[in-house]
Amino acid sequence: MKNSIGREIPDDLLVNGREAYKGKYALDGREYTKPGPTVRAHVKPLESKVIVSLREAIVRCGLRDGMTVSFHHHFRDGDYVVNLVMNEIEALGIRDITIAASSVGTAHDPVAKMIEDGVVTGLQTSGIRGRMGEVVSRGKLKTPAVLRSHGGRVRAVEQGEVRVDVTFIGAPTSDEYGNARGKGGKSDCGVLSYSMVDAKYADKVVVVTDTLVDFPNFPPSIEAVDVDYVVVVDAIGEPKKIASQAARLSQDPRDLMMAENCARVMAATPYFKDGYSFQAGAGGPPLAVYRFLEPQMVERGIKMRWALGGISQPTVDLLNKGLIRCIVDTQDFDTGAVQSVHSNPNHYEISTSQYANPMNKGAFVNKLDFVILAALEIDTDFNVNVVTGSDGILRGAPGGHPDASAGAKCAIIVTPLVRGRIPTVCERVVTVTTPGDSVDVLVTDYGIAVNPARQDLIEALSAAKVPLTTIEALKDKAYSMVGHPDDLEFHDRVIAVVEARDGTILDVVRQIKPYEL
Amino acid sequence: MKNSIGREIPDDLLVNGREAYKGKYALDGREYTKPGPTVRAHVKPLESKVIVSLREAIVRCGLRDGMTVSFHHHFRDGDYVVNLVMNEIEALGIRDITIAASSVGTAHDPVAKMIEDGVVTGLQTSGIRGRMGEVVSRGKLKTPAVLRSHGGRVRAVEQGEVRVDVTFIGAPTSDEYGNARGKGGKSDCGVLSYSMVDAKYADKVVVVTDTLVDFPNFPPSIEAVDVDYVVVVDAIGEPKKIASQAARLSQDPRDLMMAENCARVMAATPYFKDGYSFQAGAGGPPLAVYRFLEPQMVERGIKMRWALGGISQPTVDLLNKGLIRCIVDTQDFDTGAVQSVHSNPNHYEISTSQYANPMNKGAFVNKLDFVILAALEIDTDFNVNVVTGSDGILRGAPGGHPDASAGAKCAIIVTPLVRGRIPTVCERVVTVTTPGDSVDVLVTDYGIAVNPARQDLIEALSAAKVPLTTIEALKDKAYSMVGHPDDLEFHDRVIAVVEARDGTILDVVRQIKPYEL
Repeated sequence: MKNSIGREIPDDLLVNGREAYKGKYALDGREYTKPGPTVRAHVKPLESKVIVSLREAIVRCGLRDGMTVSFHHHFRDGDYVVNLVMNEIEALGIRDITIAASSVGTAHDPVAKMIEDGVVTGLQTSGIRGRMGEVVSRGKLKTPAVLRSHGGRVRAVEQGEVRVDVTFIGAPTSDEYGNARGKGGKSDCGVLSYSMVDAKYADKVVVVTDTLVDFPNFPPSIEAVDVDYVVVVDAIGEPKKIASQAARLSQDPRDLMMAENCARVMAATPYFKDGYSFQAGAGGPPLAVYRFLEPQMVERGIKMRWALGGISQPTVDLLNKGLIRCIVDTQDFDTGAVQSVHSNPNHYEISTSQYANPMNKGAFVNKLDFVILAALEIDTDFNVNVVTGSDGILRGAPGGHPDASAGAKCAIIVTPLVRGRIPTVCERVVTVTTPGDSVDVLVTDYGIAVNPARQDLIEALSAAKVPLTTIEALKDKAYSMVGHPDDLEFHDRVIAVVEARDGTILDVVRQIKPYEL
Repeated sequence: MKNSIGREIPDDLLVNGREAYKGKYALDGREYTKPGPTVRAHVKPLESKVIVSLREAIVRCGLRDGMTVSFHHHFRDGDYVVNLVMNEIEALGIRDITIAASSVGTAHDPVAKMIEDGVVTGLQTSGIRGRMGEVVSRGKLKTPAVLRSHGGRVRAVEQGEVRVDVTFIGAPTSDEYGNARGKGGKSDCGVLSYSMVDAKYADKVVVVTDTLVDFPNFPPSIEAVDVDYVVVVDAIGEPKKIASQAARLSQDPRDLMMAENCARVMAATPYFKDGYSFQAGAGGPPLAVYRFLEPQMVERGIKMRWALGGISQPTVDLLNKGLIRCIVDTQDFDTGAVQSVHSNPNHYEISTSQYANPMNKGAFVNKLDFVILAALEIDTDFNVNVVTGSDGILRGAPGGHPDASAGAKCAIIVTPLVRGRIPTVCERVVTVTTPGDSVDVLVTDYGIAVNPARQDLIEALSAAKVPLTTIEALKDKAYSMVGHPDDLEFHDRVIAVVEARDGTILDVVRQIKPYEL
């Protein structure tokens, strides 16, 4: 059947209560019962949970064929933990494992082979890049991968759709009892937001650290009451790839022009007032918006009450200047963010459930005024693709994109009209990862378009003399520049399911046909 | 049948999987599946959860006959919340309510009438005092009250034995979305440890505050993602009765002598070394121990790594002097403790599950070196009673007593040998609230006795020339001073069940026969 954004969802996926997407708030008010993990009591005092090796942890956890293991991606391209654990699992002869990660990337290229070998037969993740993206795209994973937003991932855990048997939590510091923090140590990542829900819902919880500290390691991101074992390894990550040096802000004139227009759009809405809230996605243009917000805020004498999301230096700078009252943090992209969450009492770590789970009693994204996000593609229905490349290969991550878009009063996509020979604005995106009903404004280097569903914004922007065009006109302009793109050719086989944040099916990714030269 | 401490447990209570007590670590390693609440999703953004009245909250939560409501007791004798809520429940004609509170006391005297009237027919609590204690003792509650330790209470919630339909959480501050803190406002209680588990496991969560603050009220004790409604009332408590002025330390020579002996006992054990951990119960002699610890620590050049539990000025003083590295806090007894948890970054709030739940993966009490606690009675098997008075009436609270005793390497009871005409050390306590297998040392004003099960401590104390006697000799001395006490006379009817912290039945309290004059 076709879902509410016109995507054909195979009927064989719509089983066991799984529904097709029906609109961003269609499940509002739905009641459900949360699951609970099966845990083992430590009534008798135990001084330490440190055991000698990952292998012993895997054995003691009873990990066996067919089980699900989970990981966080706070170490990004510097992560060692997934490979360390998966190598031991493979060495123990365990097969048919499902990996439920908050994201996987090039750091996990070695796992691609385990997919081909049947050690890994299921994958649930937000992002997927590198060799894992390639082998999944080429149909090597036994079951379709499930791609979820960050909020959708914790929702699936908190609704019991993903049952994690063992979570392995790489922790920059831990004490011998498992109180673990994102802060300190050799592999400092600032926060452990993605793992907080896993620690509460997984049956077995293993903390993997390279820096054991005195008890109690407080305040903890992961509480010892949820931790079964602590394993100390030489290194859990490569520091330089975990938190980059503060990224230089883009100096590209096109990026800056688009960023300035984003700030103009924001300033023209009724939401731009003292106490507003804001999130900017990673990437040059979204982050550059900070540069243009600052003078607007100073001129109007207003401050931002809170900034949300993955955090980097530009946000920290405005916090330190007193233009932001507090930062609410789910991920730290650079050393500036890591240092700030250590030392600034107005910079707070939250769980990904607090951030974006659409099915709890109200996540931070629900209170967001503005979000600025990038896109690989956006179509004339404002549907956005941030996962499949122009070659049909998985190489992206919904991340918090669909969550912040659905929650924010004004969700702005900023993207150049074309990239190389590829039109960014198009008739129909390859894969929908954020539905158009969640996107309000598109800012490109060739003009600004507002979703017709938001007549209020069209009026506000027109009143402020922000020049507007239509998304169809932008698409036509893009096609006039680079030509009408050829349709990609796919096999019927579904290699990935794109879940909407509420658990309904937004789209599917089919196996790409090899290019014929 | 008789349980492992020789108490007769009626067979009709040992049903539905309920077991008799078998020893403090008998359930170590037991596996169980945690329950989850039934919640309603807020997919669609909502700016505020503030509703106009407690009555509206009760109605919107669907509270009806036979349900269970829960409360915390951080406001102690200054609490207004229980009465405010129960008055509305009564006014709505709802009956057959079970109150699951972390404690109830004289502030809740008006609820006694609701017990007599059948509005309240179940009571699950740690402490029970005042008129509620009297009416329950006189058999007015339809079902036996269930008395649990603080750790046992959260265990029962986290194992699904207590299902809370609606929790009402009095919060000194909250934002409009329900992020609530123990800190700030007019009714500052410092921490909200007792409610943290309720917020995660109750189906409906109502925050009741008298001080609404800007969003986000961070870091929160209660997270907005768990909160359904926020109700603002004029006052949630009487500040002077919530946190007392810093209690003057006892100047009673007998108390000081016993406290000094407690410190001597501690110093004679192998656990008294740099980095040790410590908890002192409320009351004169336990708190006075701090005065004698300080010179011992200075002399030996050692420091305490962490102090645990309900916190008051003496603990804060040692933190500020640098003799304690950090405080791990579940309750604040005086303004000194409240101010400290606000301002000292080494003073941490924890949940009661982190504190003492025996069935999680390791609570703080499991890492405790020493605990010093008071007693109403202690018998020659080292069983302690802190609940029933010498008249057989409920007027006390197990609190964290059984938890800290079971977890600590050295659990010391300090009590005068007799109180008035009542022997404290006796042949058989009226009610066992902490089993003797969890008690290591008794310090009285007439001598020190060590539990024979702890030969290692007897040797250590003897080596340090701490004069020891036996508990039988202390009992004989007490009886020689005030005579052999008459046995209390009880009806057969069980009016309260005393659960061990692991959920097995430790003892029962039967209805006392009225005195005949």
